[in-house]
Amino acid sequence: MQLIKKITDWRSESSTLKRPYGLVPTMGSLHDGHLALVKRGRNDNATLIASIFVNPAQFGSSEDLQKYPKDIEADLEKLENEGVDIVFAPSLEEMYPNGFDTYVDPGKIASRLEGKHRSGHFRGVATVVSKLFSIFQPDRAYFGQKDFQQSLVIQTMSKDLNFDVQIVIERTVRDNAGLALSSRNCFLNERERDAASVLYKALTEAKNLHRVGILDAERIRRKMLQIITSEPLARIDYVSVSDAQTLLELGEIDRPAVASVAARFGATRLIDNIHFDD
Amino acid sequence: MQLIKKITDWRSESSTLKRPYGLVPTMGSLHDGHLALVKRGRNDNATLIASIFVNPAQFGSSEDLQKYPKDIEADLEKLENEGVDIVFAPSLEEMYPNGFDTYVDPGKIASRLEGKHRSGHFRGVATVVSKLFSIFQPDRAYFGQKDFQQSLVIQTMSKDLNFDVQIVIERTVRDNAGLALSSRNCFLNERERDAASVLYKALTEAKNLHRVGILDAERIRRKMLQIITSEPLARIDYVSVSDAQTLLELGEIDRPAVASVAARFGATRLIDNIHFDD
Repeated sequence: MQLIKKITDWRSESSTLKRPYGLVPTMGSLHDGHLALVKRGRNDNATLIASIFVNPAQFGSSEDLQKYPKDIEADLEKLENEGVDIVFAPSLEEMYPNGFDTYVDPGKIASRLEGKHRSGHFRGVATVVSKLFSIFQPDRAYFGQKDFQQSLVIQTMSKDLNFDVQIVIERTVRDNAGLALSSRNCFLNERERDAASVLYKALTEAKNLHRVGILDAERIRRKMLQIITSEPLARIDYVSVSDAQTLLELGEIDRPAVASVAARFGATRLIDNIHFDD
Repeated sequence: MQLIKKITDWRSESSTLKRPYGLVPTMGSLHDGHLALVKRGRNDNATLIASIFVNPAQFGSSEDLQKYPKDIEADLEKLENEGVDIVFAPSLEEMYPNGFDTYVDPGKIASRLEGKHRSGHFRGVATVVSKLFSIFQPDRAYFGQKDFQQSLVIQTMSKDLNFDVQIVIERTVRDNAGLALSSRNCFLNERERDAASVLYKALTEAKNLHRVGILDAERIRRKMLQIITSEPLARIDYVSVSDAQTLLELGEIDRPAVASVAARFGATRLIDNIHFDD
């Protein structure tokens, strides 16, 4: 495994590497959700690249950029164990040098759900992923379904800006209680962590209601709300039952749909989602 | 010469083509200014691509998109004569299919001069050029100095979004009276065309004043203004003496500088510029 910190080093290196290239963009602090992406990428591609970069452009001014967890040594060991070929771990200056002033604006899909609560977040995501796609020109790139809206933003951006890359979405990895793995879970204390599994309970109940024939989206939202509010440590940002392509809220569930939730447990904000048709 | 209308056709074609690739993006209606870019591109590269696409995203709602001149047959003949390998002439649907919703926002450099008078113009330019860079991954791309601010926007965008392409700027081509060649010159009647050469007179005088030691930018702006307003058919949008990198207006000319003008002659809006250090 080779650790690369400079874009120019990649460019001089890459002529010897075989296609197809797989890219797994991460912000480090890797958990089994990331490693599921890496395993899939290893299986699909001749060359597998993982990037580790905590992207300031996707954090709001009041968010947790400064305390976002970092453990580069542990990350490198995990990636090496999975057979990654190239790890790209650039500095802030390498990605956003002085004078940087161009952003990729991802449009309507980014204005919904998380977009309403995290102003500028998806602009930061679309920008850094565009940069990584330009640098590596991967054949495939891997993202987790936990950040489902992010994957839609990236699919739209990639298609619109004509990147020749297949976006692969891997299923959310969960702990035994159903809590979706997230680098931010390390901020939860024991009681918050127990409480946070209420999100998956609400999502599973939403899916069950749909499965037994309930097509009234508002009824399903109310049930999710009721389940989450029964947990005193949860403060809800939103519960949503939306069109799985546009993320517009549904009245009747008459097309592929997704239930999404965002809530805070203490200082930690978590998101999760479930597709009704999986 | 091969005419390509679909991005997928380029992708299946390109594996046989030798690098380096040169790209000359145009909106068609080609004049000798464009052909100077093509000649330079032909000289520099193993494979030369020219694109012809009138990009709606860079026209304001009150601008001349509908009447922008088109003559694809004449354009193709000129490009063939110059030895172009590939002409890319996509449809509107090919570049902006239904659901297109991602734009490249070029930041501060785009907010000055033309940016103040043509809201969204450079966003449209940055977006379409990003798309062309993604599609063709050229080693070099060619732009004219007449649209000097555009070339700065594209340089910044290309660097920020990590496109691995050298931006080559070719000198403005002028007619005998000094009028910079532009596809829009065909809209000028004979009197307007005579009048329009006042722009180059003002720019040359600006450069002469600087050459004899005048470093007071405001004095040079006033002189340009005086020359252009002496022409009754000219309606000025701006005269500018600015930092050649940032396009911020200068007080004293203590660094590389550029004089820029924009004015209307009848319904036709023209721009031009001159570098003091060329």
